[in-house]
Amino acid sequence: MNNEELSSGRIPRQGAGVLPEPTLRRLPWYLAYLSTLRRQKVEYVSTTRIADELKVAPSQIAKDLSFLGIKGKTRIGYSVEDLEQSLGQFLGFTQRHNAVMLGVGSLGAALIADSGLQRYGLNIVAGIDIDAERIGTKINAVEVYAPDCLPELARAMNISIAVLAVPVDSAQEVANHAISCGIPAIWNFTPTRIVAPAEIVVSNTSIYSHLAVMYNRLGNIPSR
Amino acid sequence: MNNEELSSGRIPRQGAGVLPEPTLRRLPWYLAYLSTLRRQKVEYVSTTRIADELKVAPSQIAKDLSFLGIKGKTRIGYSVEDLEQSLGQFLGFTQRHNAVMLGVGSLGAALIADSGLQRYGLNIVAGIDIDAERIGTKINAVEVYAPDCLPELARAMNISIAVLAVPVDSAQEVANHAISCGIPAIWNFTPTRIVAPAEIVVSNTSIYSHLAVMYNRLGNIPSR
Repeated sequence: MNNEELSSGRIPRQGAGVLPEPTLRRLPWYLAYLSTLRRQKVEYVSTTRIADELKVAPSQIAKDLSFLGIKGKTRIGYSVEDLEQSLGQFLGFTQRHNAVMLGVGSLGAALIADSGLQRYGLNIVAGIDIDAERIGTKINAVEVYAPDCLPELARAMNISIAVLAVPVDSAQEVANHAISCGIPAIWNFTPTRIVAPAEIVVSNTSIYSHLAVMYNRLGNIPSR
Repeated sequence: MNNEELSSGRIPRQGAGVLPEPTLRRLPWYLAYLSTLRRQKVEYVSTTRIADELKVAPSQIAKDLSFLGIKGKTRIGYSVEDLEQSLGQFLGFTQRHNAVMLGVGSLGAALIADSGLQRYGLNIVAGIDIDAERIGTKINAVEVYAPDCLPELARAMNISIAVLAVPVDSAQEVANHAISCGIPAIWNFTPTRIVAPAEIVVSNTSIYSHLAVMYNRLGNIPSR
């Protein structure tokens, strides 16, 4: 891999150490709840109230928030607006992260169309597909290109995340191609495991394995 | 909750105990790889080969597969076709599970349009939305109804899974409504935590918290 290409795709962030993954999964819950409170014009919130709403231990919440260097005030708690803003910044949701969608079949096209991702800082700037009929078309103003355009796109558009939504048979190969283009993170939506060098960030959103877990649990609801 | 309604939405499954979640997350990887091998006309596969491809220890694979009561043959390994079929059945992907999409905004509509879910046994039979302009419309032949239709729909269409893709402010309330209609599982795509009685299956696909993890890891790629 070319280091220069890799660094061109890197997002500089400051102040955030590598956090435990469970903390990183809980912080967005707090953020979502704070946004709700803000819309309800609530000004201050205690860990106890967050704990009651989200069923997380108050001590865990205080510990999670301490990673942000934020402490609540005795008796008053946290300022809803300040904490919401700090959390959003800390989680990277308020920055723009340019991404490319690899595979614009039904799931890929659907993810491009989901405006929620944009609100959480993911800016899908291009799609890639091997299907000649898709190349040159646009999905919600996002243009679809041929795979051989990826090296140039990754550089020119400062792409830091490749969202993987290709058929499973070509998933690893397509991920390898993205990595060779200097894209430092793969967000894997395919049902297979993606193997990548240690310096590459791989995040798996295994929609289908969540289904498997749910089906299994459903099959085991005791009869009444 | 009405038990009769609950049981009408229940999917009877046999032979599968409650599996450890890590096993349930790995099994779909094996299934995806087996499907690839079958399409490549490979007849037998060893745990070593699966291990090499997916970077999972061979002993772990053997242990995971032992939950299915399947053992490989010495020197020959597993029959690709048989193992693929057993895994698909075991994971519930070959059965149909009727689901309702709660909220057909950008993400909800996108998930309805994703034909991949259908291939993995999720059959979205109806959508629910509060927006009068959406009610009565169809997304890929899936009709959108008003919330007060849910009790009747849940019963008539034997719905076992409510897919939650509403705005975060109403997520818990909408989940409560689905549960009160006897739907035994909630698949939560919102960024908040859903609190539910112990007998309800809640599966979280926290797309946005995966983004937070990825942004955090990206911010900590050491400079070179």
